[in-house]
Amino acid sequence: MVYMIPGLHSVKEALLDNRTGIVELWVSEGKDSARVKEILNIADIKDVPVLYKKAYILDDILPGTTHQGIVAMALEYTYFDLGELINVSLKAPGYALLIVADHITDEGNLGAIIRTAVFFGAHGLVLPKDRSAKITQNVMKRSSGAYVHLPIARVVNLNRALDTLNKKGFWIIGAAGESMNSIYQFDWKRDLVLILGSEDKGLSPSVRNKCHQIVGIPTAGNLNALNVSVATGVILSEIVRQQSNK
Amino acid sequence: MVYMIPGLHSVKEALLDNRTGIVELWVSEGKDSARVKEILNIADIKDVPVLYKKAYILDDILPGTTHQGIVAMALEYTYFDLGELINVSLKAPGYALLIVADHITDEGNLGAIIRTAVFFGAHGLVLPKDRSAKITQNVMKRSSGAYVHLPIARVVNLNRALDTLNKKGFWIIGAAGESMNSIYQFDWKRDLVLILGSEDKGLSPSVRNKCHQIVGIPTAGNLNALNVSVATGVILSEIVRQQSNK
Repeated sequence: MVYMIPGLHSVKEALLDNRTGIVELWVSEGKDSARVKEILNIADIKDVPVLYKKAYILDDILPGTTHQGIVAMALEYTYFDLGELINVSLKAPGYALLIVADHITDEGNLGAIIRTAVFFGAHGLVLPKDRSAKITQNVMKRSSGAYVHLPIARVVNLNRALDTLNKKGFWIIGAAGESMNSIYQFDWKRDLVLILGSEDKGLSPSVRNKCHQIVGIPTAGNLNALNVSVATGVILSEIVRQQSNK
Repeated sequence: MVYMIPGLHSVKEALLDNRTGIVELWVSEGKDSARVKEILNIADIKDVPVLYKKAYILDDILPGTTHQGIVAMALEYTYFDLGELINVSLKAPGYALLIVADHITDEGNLGAIIRTAVFFGAHGLVLPKDRSAKITQNVMKRSSGAYVHLPIARVVNLNRALDTLNKKGFWIIGAAGESMNSIYQFDWKRDLVLILGSEDKGLSPSVRNKCHQIVGIPTAGNLNALNVSVATGVILSEIVRQQSNK
């Protein structure tokens, strides 16, 4: 499946990321700004073919999109292996920190989680193959391009992946709105897998059974749940704060 | 200006919130589930007229929307006065906590900020009248209905509002991605106004000048900015954690 990635910033980020697999660039005739030239230069270095198109063609294939006269044709995102994520995270300085998205289906949420994970220095993200948002062009965009900084693996069986992580010595911690175990009380100084539940159903029962601990963010108000990407930020912030003794 | 609020849950929340100003309900003919009857009962108590429409009419006026056969026609949100917010927050137990959105323009972000503010028990939100998202139907929805729990004021002049808050003894704290003053080091045990900058420009220069302190969230990774609603969650979490000695 081929994706179209429109716009100067996104095209440049995608070209620089070998995982995105750009097969060609489409550029509107007459576009020759410094930013376009810089991108064409990168395309040349990366051996990506450039096709010049009449301006209306880009408008036609991407109606209502701010494509800025440039579109990258990309193959599907190439996922990492779980084994690669484990190696990267265990070799990193400090504690290992992987995130598992337990059937997050909203692309905006998945993009925001990726951006937040990169901000707080997580080492990787694990997604289940089915009933989960994938790393689409929209998710890449909603991550503000941060996806290039985070290894992302896709696994067929999430339970088996958690067994593997458990055997490697990771603590498997699930986040659930209703848990009375406060994230502020939990000792985060260990190699961690943080599992985020889906927007509507939370943690799957089978995933919940694999957790060493379930933690929650105590509310000071009237609500019992945060948006999952905001909750991710709150929990990662507390993890980083404790681990760095801030 | 009249807004349309579709769907059982949203219509019920809006009916129960006197600020939303529902002028009438439109219900598809033949809808008589228990949830619809409950809403009709509330409408009766609140003296809101109910109009029955052919089912295709709701599909026509709200194409592609899951309206569940019920739509509320609402007047514009009625904002609170800044004075009311100040009184509410100073009378609340513990420290006062108000949030100022310094020209947040994305409705999804504003909705998520409202939901997050309610979750962490903030006492109110201040918006500037111009160049800011307003409390539209979409913002109400994106807040998951949380807007009914948060007094929201709109001010013509943000700088004058900050002067007023300063005179009332609030500490005016601005959040900016590039600040080296860590949110984890700052002492949040005081009456607070937390100012969030806009998605693209951050804090306005004039607003920045009104701040007693500018704080930032230290990144552990490669990025210098979080999504503003995620940043709001991270900072409010740290405020609540410190204030409750968690």
